[in-house]
Amino acid sequence: MARSDLVIRADHVVTCDDAMTVIENGAVAVRDGRIAAVGSAASIEVEGADVLDARGRILMPGLINMHCHAGDSLFRGLVENLPLEPWLQTVWKAERAILDPATCRLGAEIGLAELLLSGVTTVMDMFWFPEETVRAAKALGIRVATGGIFFDPPGMDGHLADRRLADATAFFDAVEDDPLVFAGCLPHGTYTVSPQHLQNAARLSRSRGGFWCTHAAETKTEQATIVERYGRRVIAHLAELDLLGPDVVLAHCVHLDRAEIDLLAASGSHVVHNPMSNLKLASGFAPVPALLAAGVNVTLGTDGAISGNDLDMWLAIRLAATLHKATTGNAAAVTTGEALAMATRNGARALGAGDRLGSIEVGKEADLILVDTGRLHAAPLFDPVTHLVYSAGRGDVTDVFVAGRRVVEAGRLVNADVGALIAAADSLRPTIAASIA
Amino acid sequence: MARSDLVIRADHVVTCDDAMTVIENGAVAVRDGRIAAVGSAASIEVEGADVLDARGRILMPGLINMHCHAGDSLFRGLVENLPLEPWLQTVWKAERAILDPATCRLGAEIGLAELLLSGVTTVMDMFWFPEETVRAAKALGIRVATGGIFFDPPGMDGHLADRRLADATAFFDAVEDDPLVFAGCLPHGTYTVSPQHLQNAARLSRSRGGFWCTHAAETKTEQATIVERYGRRVIAHLAELDLLGPDVVLAHCVHLDRAEIDLLAASGSHVVHNPMSNLKLASGFAPVPALLAAGVNVTLGTDGAISGNDLDMWLAIRLAATLHKATTGNAAAVTTGEALAMATRNGARALGAGDRLGSIEVGKEADLILVDTGRLHAAPLFDPVTHLVYSAGRGDVTDVFVAGRRVVEAGRLVNADVGALIAAADSLRPTIAASIA
Repeated sequence: MARSDLVIRADHVVTCDDAMTVIENGAVAVRDGRIAAVGSAASIEVEGADVLDARGRILMPGLINMHCHAGDSLFRGLVENLPLEPWLQTVWKAERAILDPATCRLGAEIGLAELLLSGVTTVMDMFWFPEETVRAAKALGIRVATGGIFFDPPGMDGHLADRRLADATAFFDAVEDDPLVFAGCLPHGTYTVSPQHLQNAARLSRSRGGFWCTHAAETKTEQATIVERYGRRVIAHLAELDLLGPDVVLAHCVHLDRAEIDLLAASGSHVVHNPMSNLKLASGFAPVPALLAAGVNVTLGTDGAISGNDLDMWLAIRLAATLHKATTGNAAAVTTGEALAMATRNGARALGAGDRLGSIEVGKEADLILVDTGRLHAAPLFDPVTHLVYSAGRGDVTDVFVAGRRVVEAGRLVNADVGALIAAADSLRPTIAASIA
Repeated sequence: MARSDLVIRADHVVTCDDAMTVIENGAVAVRDGRIAAVGSAASIEVEGADVLDARGRILMPGLINMHCHAGDSLFRGLVENLPLEPWLQTVWKAERAILDPATCRLGAEIGLAELLLSGVTTVMDMFWFPEETVRAAKALGIRVATGGIFFDPPGMDGHLADRRLADATAFFDAVEDDPLVFAGCLPHGTYTVSPQHLQNAARLSRSRGGFWCTHAAETKTEQATIVERYGRRVIAHLAELDLLGPDVVLAHCVHLDRAEIDLLAASGSHVVHNPMSNLKLASGFAPVPALLAAGVNVTLGTDGAISGNDLDMWLAIRLAATLHKATTGNAAAVTTGEALAMATRNGARALGAGDRLGSIEVGKEADLILVDTGRLHAAPLFDPVTHLVYSAGRGDVTDVFVAGRRVVEAGRLVNADVGALIAAADSLRPTIAASIA
């Protein structure tokens, strides 16, 4: 066997493979950015490799956050304690006032840095100036799935609808072959984008082998709007337009009827559950147990920091594992293994990257994180999977590797300065506050 | 003005007073364990005092966790992915097998240490051998509200029901005049304690000026049991027995009808909302907006680590502020100020200590915490109250003072060694695991 570049040993290797295999006193060998070997620490050859002895830690795959608007971090906590509609109008006013390539880059850096520090190694992001999101992601070393937004009203980027297809095409060209970027098209939603523009986006993403992602069935109002406008519910509308399938990622899916769940399952479309956003914006409770029972691939997301107000995938995991127990009255609804899969391998599958990401298996890319269990909330530690789902948190992540490259070390970003990002956000604060005054 | 012992300056002083006053560039002076002055940093005299310059931090009152079973930390994550009934039977089997004064002391130390590190300065705890909980609390420097449990079946402490009143009386005697301890009686619930024993407990607590706390209306099954047994619902049953009032603290109150909410409001009884426990155990959603609208004093709790699985009051705050938006469809339900009050001054009021604890006001005890805002999830910081409710977390608390005494310094316990506690929990792990094998 060829020598490895790096061997990481840990008390527990939680592989997040299909069997949710956990290896006690395990180790993972990395070579050329990929996982070369997984097994007991004793079985992994270390000669010639750097060895990282992560005693008192869990080694697991990086988290995959399938729905985010990182740039919205600039508006975190700007407006609260209002009903949804006046709140949205105020936030949009602020967005319109200050968003440009530079502010979008800053917002993306702040959001993506927060994610990376918490152990997220891949994020699907929908925001204006997505090429700036890519720049921020590459500077930090996090994988990103993004692309052109489609939106029929004038966008926050100042572009009109007739320019969207060209913008989105240029995005595909710009990131082609970039191993850290998944490219796709991201129309905003069925209520803000015409059927023709939704289909234009899909034609483009399908011709380029990319994903197609939209907000779908997030609120009752949205469902009512689409029924009134098209005479059918949101998911049926997408089906009618041939906009379901294994390349389709639908964020939210809170309000679904039985027929819509069946359409999602039969088409192999992927759902992103965003529990904190759905709570805070009063959207409701996604029917996750029914989706899982129907065989739909359910992934997890944080949504943006104006509907969170942080980007905490650990909170998303915890809520995915607990909310649906209360809505169904079944304390066994959504198991710990199911919740952890949503945050890891299910996300990889939704990206069409189930063979490359999402679990610790030989041949996959070495997107790995270390979670410190030397914390009181981890004591005693009976089962690492249970711990990760019900007790662990963003503050427990010590180290993050993307494609074998260490991008967080001992709780610090390798490629960015948190203090500088906070200072930059702070310097923009008066302008943002004034924009809604 | 007499000299202060300590002056703490911070970017924001979030007082949690009735008006939720926030002082930018504020300071608090402490003398003899009490708050001697509050105001702008420039206005507070520092001569002769130690000065703590907490730049980049929020100073606020310590959190008050009104429902916990700290000792259950020993069983954290022992059994999961089971429906409630078989899960409970398994946990109880483990409790029966290993609980004694020494293990209860260890469990309490682990739980209370976790709470203190996260900024909780007062906790109401219900567990076997409550005198061990008091020892653990005093060693750590956290305030505790506890007392004798009443339980008609044989207890996990090996005691029978006929001994409970004597045990509870002895507890009052033992902690009399202890400034860190609130003493009360804690009957387990209406379905496990006879009306006579519930009333015995109340006679004792009322004769000693203590609180009376029980689990109430946690599950549908509990309501059905009480209706079947007594012909009335849980809160009506308590009212009939004269067991409501300003000395009464009721944990959970998930399943209430309109008449029960009115009874709680009219009697001045206090409710403890435990959102994470109610989710994980599939109990349901407490009607918090209706309780608040009726004028009931709603406080917050974590419950124990077998229904959590951590003791995270920040998560409780976040859920209190968001869950009820989703259940009501109103994005303005439970404001940030209401959520923060639940975790601070409402708890103090429920303890009959509204004049001593729960806010930063002159004359109150100096139970204070510092929350670091030098984190990406705090950037930008438009409003500190919003940040505390929707973004802050346990990992942000740097320093904790109880009665002016620093008990957490720079994220470390002053009076206990986390590593030793974790090691002790770990050494008990095989025995606990074997007890349910």
